[in-house]
Amino acid sequence: MSKPVLHSYFRSSTSYRVRIALEMKGITYQYRAHHLREGEHRQAGYLAVNPQGLVPALVWSNGTMISQSLAIIEYIDEMVSKPALLPKDAAGRARVRMLSQMIACDIHPLNNLRVLDALRERFGAGDSAVASWFRHWVHETFEPLERMLRESEDTGKFCHGDEPGMADICLAAQVTNNKRFHVEMDAYPTINRISAACFKLEAFQKAAPENQPDAE
Amino acid sequence: MSKPVLHSYFRSSTSYRVRIALEMKGITYQYRAHHLREGEHRQAGYLAVNPQGLVPALVWSNGTMISQSLAIIEYIDEMVSKPALLPKDAAGRARVRMLSQMIACDIHPLNNLRVLDALRERFGAGDSAVASWFRHWVHETFEPLERMLRESEDTGKFCHGDEPGMADICLAAQVTNNKRFHVEMDAYPTINRISAACFKLEAFQKAAPENQPDAE
Repeated sequence: MSKPVLHSYFRSSTSYRVRIALEMKGITYQYRAHHLREGEHRQAGYLAVNPQGLVPALVWSNGTMISQSLAIIEYIDEMVSKPALLPKDAAGRARVRMLSQMIACDIHPLNNLRVLDALRERFGAGDSAVASWFRHWVHETFEPLERMLRESEDTGKFCHGDEPGMADICLAAQVTNNKRFHVEMDAYPTINRISAACFKLEAFQKAAPENQPDAE
Repeated sequence: MSKPVLHSYFRSSTSYRVRIALEMKGITYQYRAHHLREGEHRQAGYLAVNPQGLVPALVWSNGTMISQSLAIIEYIDEMVSKPALLPKDAAGRARVRMLSQMIACDIHPLNNLRVLDALRERFGAGDSAVASWFRHWVHETFEPLERMLRESEDTGKFCHGDEPGMADICLAAQVTNNKRFHVEMDAYPTINRISAACFKLEAFQKAAPENQPDAE
């Protein structure tokens, strides 16, 4: 397999998820940065690659483009089996997908750049209102997520057992994102414990926003 | 397998997705309605089932609870193999997950009831501003989605080939949801063709909002 191209932005939480998965699997890739703040992802060249104009997108050597971070991660997991990012059993896979989608559907889509910009443009939201909006949706999901992780016997050192997987990838990327908006994390000891375990891993460190070529 | 319990709300687009999948697979289930407008999903009894307090959630006879519609659908697909809701090949699965997540991550989370209510409460958004917000995020994704469906050889009678699957489920539920906000659909002939094919199928009809016990 020749090197796939990852279209990314260092600060993009969803790009971070895919970078972690690539690092965990030991897949080397070409990094192509798109500066979201300057609208580079909405230019014709990139729209020809990914019509949605969002990052991340992963383009394989045969030309296949996959966008949407969880779709990319599941594809990577099916292509390179070890280390497994989803459990072997159907119930375990369902739990990991559920935990992942709690973050990927119920937090991140409400808090990404294009949405925060829309709040400013459409409703005149200022920095304080935008930050309050961001934190609100994190807490709405982190409260039940903390409880579900704390109360389940399936939770181990990581979200599902003692090895990191797709849910941990989503969790760590969200916890990283939260720091930009100073989200109070004291109420989430289990989330803090698991994300701390993630941040000790080389794959999560290599993939971190501050270690990307386009980091500011 | 004794009957699973589906926690649902007739008008919830994500509940609709799961109902379609259950009907397609011929899985009979108990229907438990939660009236979102009256906050029934945020009461202690339901929070003990699903700490997130959202619908849908599917509870199996062994007590296993799965929330998040795409996680539920993939679990159903793994438990009951026919008809398949995802393709057999990894690239096909990635494409179907990508198309599904374009709707499930980039449209629906921005347009569900709790978010529209938050726009009213936090920013004083009125009916017109809320409807404009809803339509904006639909068009932002439907424009590239239309192009991706139209230009791909993988698209057939349905989103991926000639049999309906997970992407069609997401698409049809979103098209149904759009009607409440009068989304202009003339620019989306491929989406219209595929959703019309879906609405002819018995599973999609049985699962439709207006055919649920709690329909108003």
